[in-house]
Amino acid sequence: MSAPQMPHMPHIGVLPSGALGTIADVSGVTVGHCTLDQGPIQTGVTVIRAHRDDPYRQKVPAAASVINGFGKSIGLVQIEELGVLETPIALTNTFGVAAVAQAQIRAAIASNPQIGREWPTVNPLVFECNDGYLNDLQALAIQETHYAQALDRAAASFDRGSVGAGRGMSCFDLKGGIGSSSRVVSVAGRGFTVGALVLANFGRLPMLTVDGVPIGRELAPAQRTQAAHAAVSKPEQGSIIMIAATDAPLDARQLKRLSMRAAAGLARTGSAYGHGSGDIALAFSTAWTVAHDGDFVSTPPLLNDARLDPLFHACADSVEQAIVDALWSATSVTGRDGHTRLSLRDAVPDLEQRLEQRSA
Amino acid sequence: MSAPQMPHMPHIGVLPSGALGTIADVSGVTVGHCTLDQGPIQTGVTVIRAHRDDPYRQKVPAAASVINGFGKSIGLVQIEELGVLETPIALTNTFGVAAVAQAQIRAAIASNPQIGREWPTVNPLVFECNDGYLNDLQALAIQETHYAQALDRAAASFDRGSVGAGRGMSCFDLKGGIGSSSRVVSVAGRGFTVGALVLANFGRLPMLTVDGVPIGRELAPAQRTQAAHAAVSKPEQGSIIMIAATDAPLDARQLKRLSMRAAAGLARTGSAYGHGSGDIALAFSTAWTVAHDGDFVSTPPLLNDARLDPLFHACADSVEQAIVDALWSATSVTGRDGHTRLSLRDAVPDLEQRLEQRSA
Amino acid sequence: MSAPQMPHMPHIGVLPSGALGTIADVSGVTVGHCTLDQGPIQTGVTVIRAHRDDPYRQKVPAAASVINGFGKSIGLVQIEELGVLETPIALTNTFGVAAVAQAQIRAAIASNPQIGREWPTVNPLVFECNDGYLNDLQALAIQETHYAQALDRAAASFDRGSVGAGRGMSCFDLKGGIGSSSRVVSVAGRGFTVGALVLANFGRLPMLTVDGVPIGRELAPAQRTQAAHAAVSKPEQGSIIMIAATDAPLDARQLKRLSMRAAAGLARTGSAYGHGSGDIALAFSTAWTVAHDGDFVSTPPLLNDARLDPLFHACADSVEQAIVDALWSATSVTGRDGHTRLSLRDAVPDLEQRLEQRSA
Amino acid sequence: MSAPQMPHMPHIGVLPSGALGTIADVSGVTVGHCTLDQGPIQTGVTVIRAHRDDPYRQKVPAAASVINGFGKSIGLVQIEELGVLETPIALTNTFGVAAVAQAQIRAAIASNPQIGREWPTVNPLVFECNDGYLNDLQALAIQETHYAQALDRAAASFDRGSVGAGRGMSCFDLKGGIGSSSRVVSVAGRGFTVGALVLANFGRLPMLTVDGVPIGRELAPAQRTQAAHAAVSKPEQGSIIMIAATDAPLDARQLKRLSMRAAAGLARTGSAYGHGSGDIALAFSTAWTVAHDGDFVSTPPLLNDARLDPLFHACADSVEQAIVDALWSATSVTGRDGHTRLSLRDAVPDLEQRLEQRSA
Repeated sequence: MSAPQMPHMPHIGVLPSGALGTIADVSGVTVGHCTLDQGPIQTGVTVIRAHRDDPYRQKVPAAASVINGFGKSIGLVQIEELGVLETPIALTNTFGVAAVAQAQIRAAIASNPQIGREWPTVNPLVFECNDGYLNDLQALAIQETHYAQALDRAAASFDRGSVGAGRGMSCFDLKGGIGSSSRVVSVAGRGFTVGALVLANFGRLPMLTVDGVPIGRELAPAQRTQAAHAAVSKPEQGSIIMIAATDAPLDARQLKRLSMRAAAGLARTGSAYGHGSGDIALAFSTAWTVAHDGDFVSTPPLLNDARLDPLFHACADSVEQAIVDALWSATSVTGRDGHTRLSLRDAVPDLEQRLEQRSA
Repeated sequence: MSAPQMPHMPHIGVLPSGALGTIADVSGVTVGHCTLDQGPIQTGVTVIRAHRDDPYRQKVPAAASVINGFGKSIGLVQIEELGVLETPIALTNTFGVAAVAQAQIRAAIASNPQIGREWPTVNPLVFECNDGYLNDLQALAIQETHYAQALDRAAASFDRGSVGAGRGMSCFDLKGGIGSSSRVVSVAGRGFTVGALVLANFGRLPMLTVDGVPIGRELAPAQRTQAAHAAVSKPEQGSIIMIAATDAPLDARQLKRLSMRAAAGLARTGSAYGHGSGDIALAFSTAWTVAHDGDFVSTPPLLNDARLDPLFHACADSVEQAIVDALWSATSVTGRDGHTRLSLRDAVPDLEQRLEQRSA
Repeated sequence: MSAPQMPHMPHIGVLPSGALGTIADVSGVTVGHCTLDQGPIQTGVTVIRAHRDDPYRQKVPAAASVINGFGKSIGLVQIEELGVLETPIALTNTFGVAAVAQAQIRAAIASNPQIGREWPTVNPLVFECNDGYLNDLQALAIQETHYAQALDRAAASFDRGSVGAGRGMSCFDLKGGIGSSSRVVSVAGRGFTVGALVLANFGRLPMLTVDGVPIGRELAPAQRTQAAHAAVSKPEQGSIIMIAATDAPLDARQLKRLSMRAAAGLARTGSAYGHGSGDIALAFSTAWTVAHDGDFVSTPPLLNDARLDPLFHACADSVEQAIVDALWSATSVTGRDGHTRLSLRDAVPDLEQRLEQRSA
Repeated sequence: MSAPQMPHMPHIGVLPSGALGTIADVSGVTVGHCTLDQGPIQTGVTVIRAHRDDPYRQKVPAAASVINGFGKSIGLVQIEELGVLETPIALTNTFGVAAVAQAQIRAAIASNPQIGREWPTVNPLVFECNDGYLNDLQALAIQETHYAQALDRAAASFDRGSVGAGRGMSCFDLKGGIGSSSRVVSVAGRGFTVGALVLANFGRLPMLTVDGVPIGRELAPAQRTQAAHAAVSKPEQGSIIMIAATDAPLDARQLKRLSMRAAAGLARTGSAYGHGSGDIALAFSTAWTVAHDGDFVSTPPLLNDARLDPLFHACADSVEQAIVDALWSATSVTGRDGHTRLSLRDAVPDLEQRLEQRSA
């Protein structure tokens, strides 16, 4: 469970949250984790499903924006060309991509034995961040079964923080991991939801900005300039994966536009998209699917691009909120070689006061 | 001159500014304006020169990021392919692009009569924003001579605010226009400067965020939610052009990376890259040039990509600062049909107090 | 007029042509020219209309592929973002882009006085090639009125060869210009047409390949190796613009895929996309339009991507055919400084025999 | 071994080949295969090394063009961002990507134990084609050890045809696989080599075009139109990976341009970049390397872009030649479910006569 003792996570922006306050507010979306927590092995797999049907037979429109391409994902080339997902979305550590991709292939074949025979192959989709500070990456601990376990556990209710792929992740030199949020907007007289889920593993402490407040700089006021300079000098080796889901009827071109707005939410937390940070956003819509077979594809009436601004703001705000949520939800973790990342709550016991002071 | 009566513009981030606090801190860069200010005609042209030599014979490495492509610039296709500028950078209103491009062609031919004969043609580069709220766009007031005038006036010292291409621009429902700034960083034991110049013409008031403080929302606290909703619902018709210059030795691929960081600075002012906002960033380096002729191109030793983080932060911060500078520098303007945009100073007389209260 | 004395233009590939054998086989598409033919001024404007309605109010889905971006077009940035045309497509010489763009803006305002006031601005779309060998580019002969004239003359029946924007163009060191063609395919039990129109201005003679036959090399067999080496050594300063129209129901993402297939047709004529050749393809569909206003956009059922191969072949073949058509249709032209480009018919009187010999 | 009994493989174009006639004419480049040939398992791994040094410590400049992104490669996101290779290039079947990527990670860690600890992670680079007609893809036969074996065998002398990753590949309904070639050009008074290696697995028989001769159509003249229509109607499930190496001093931006010219060579063999064909080209230069560490990167003088045309033709021609070479070198293979692909030599015993007749 995310942290009950930190009740006052700031609400980012002016748009209201959905009921759950997670990506699962987009109806049908579910999330599951498999967490490995054994001494130097602090890592895992997180899976996001767009719907409960077979993802290969009912493909979901999707598109991605590569904000900084220092990353080792698999699957984006085909998504750029065809604009659909055909597997669940998987998140894991950098050296777990291969095992998880293999597991996705095996799962797709199990459900659709025609794949690679009468039918084309399947496009695995796995994103990653480098959790090597806490996790012994070189142990290559992620196995195919971990994907299956995460997939099995996918549900509308799911944990955030130091779980799943987020188990070993660091963010602003604190404990990062999985965060999620949602926003509800009204467009053209109808209500739509944008939900975000992030795997947050980026940033140095002096950059940390929460709801506009440069908390990171203040945490060491005496060394302010010096620390801040060091922060921008020391290269990031992190990354962030940002997944946005929506029930608004958008096609792949529009979803690419939506995904780009994740860059705005990310920037507001203090990131300038560091060189070594693979900052990638993907957006998908649950409003329609593309059948694997068939001569024609029928879409519902799509939103006019001129009506997208509320969704753009919802995407930016929900990604910013999801990053904050990752920090709020995470618990401190100690991993390989005794490396420890403190949770925000443990590192800044008076955080609430600091934020309230500023928003008075 | 920019506004002496508003001395306390907040300094964005922790990196120091250069001596001038403008893009001209990058040695050799100059800026000139031609301003049209006649009743319903409130518009102009701004020109940025990378150096004093012939821009066609000494091409400057450059690259752009299209953050939201609702824009009518000319010149980006070739810059993406070849990675060099071969004219000064021109900014104007949306319907002035053609006249300014024509003027750039004429200027290039005048200096190099071989163009379009023994030599290839020249690639004009003109960016635009829509100043139609204050300016009578349909009058097509921009003429070729306005470009020549702006070019003639290019200097290291230049005005900001409601001048040049910025004359008729709006930003956060206030008066926008030209803003500029710079940041100095140390990389690999050497000092480098990043300078930014923006043509700021985007955003709705409730989004306005200055140095992390959501000033825009607070300006109408009673109607906060309502106004904010309206703000994200009402489509933007603005745009922002963000030019980053640096003396760091980077090639076009690296400059593309640098230009992308403008998106971070923009986001922190409240933008989510609105649908109707042409948000385009271009970065160039003054550290070396490509001769028009010659079999080989010699570059200085280029910075290793792993050392770019300070420059990335400098780009994000200087763009954010330049946007704030545009608001701070602008003066109120009344244009077509009696439309008026108040400057920030006129709209929020107690601005300084509001900001100080928050940063206490 | 296309050349009656050269009846045996080879038919490229195995797919049948439409009734007209031009882009106008896509129902509703019309083409008009304005040709300037006065001594050193050998140039013009060509306009392609997707339909007879207002192009701003009924936007046509479209997308482009930049195969080699040595080009000075205007309009592609917004098309990439929004996936629609909102003006006719205009072709002209490199230094005519500005005048034609201005004319497009004026025409759009005339039809829709809300543009730039209550409504957003309009995105002009002008492509260009460099006709500087025959035409005195520096005279900047293209005026706004030439666009209007070309637009007025748009019809389903139109000339090809040394007309309109093609008046001064060179191709394989011969006379190039406007070419057009079409192909009809059956997909999912329905018939669809792909039509192509090219502005052909690329290539050196030794590369010339007609229906797979390397005619260019054979035209100078004694100097074969030498000439060919010279050909690949001497840089191209040409370009080719390739417009593909279809009545198949495709969206912008799919049209981008279709446009890319123009690269295949182009390559088969001998091009390797020369450095100095702006090789750009744009595809649009007439199957549906996007209204300027409205909350939602309804599309017809779109073709499943897995059914696109016949259209891809039709695009490649029709572009190759259109290039051949440009060579076949062109007449010899003498322009500035006495420069002359011979038509293929004039340069190779025994062309037919050469081709028949090879296809026996 | 390439086929001694088919000595008259046509020479594509007018540029001369290098001494070996393979990608290994680019000095330092080596290729190794691991071939699996056991009943229904007909597949393998091919590895291309750019040099003999550690690929992670001496990174090679590189860039890719995705001509049609129906593909499941891993590694392109980071190459697009950073413009360097840091592993050998690996080719395999679609469902072997994960195992090979894992093997690349393990090999990189073995050589550089700092990876994922003090140093960043490593970016595996694996391309794939679908060999499911001959090979039992679902068996997931590729193991990590197969990569190691291919890597160990890398040499300047290597087999082509039905070997390595090419073992199970089909091309134009015939046996495809590995092909290679080279071209030598003179630029700026210096000689440079472009070498190509392809994994050819695309096309339907009626499209097959060899040196401009539409052999495929002629192989069934009676059913010509019908067969050809069927060919363009029946979707491709193939793909082609095209690797171009050069010793010319180019940077990543220029290598991206070079890689795009592979599309021209591919088109000339009859391809229109089929929907289901992952057509991807990657180019790298051996003229310089980027050290893993260091503040600055020194490049040799780079070729001026205006001098690239000979290299562009060399890339197009060598890719076309490499595809022809794959067909010429391949031997017939029978795999899963008794599926057989005849080699070109077995399918068309009188091929030489057919080609000579046409080139008389």
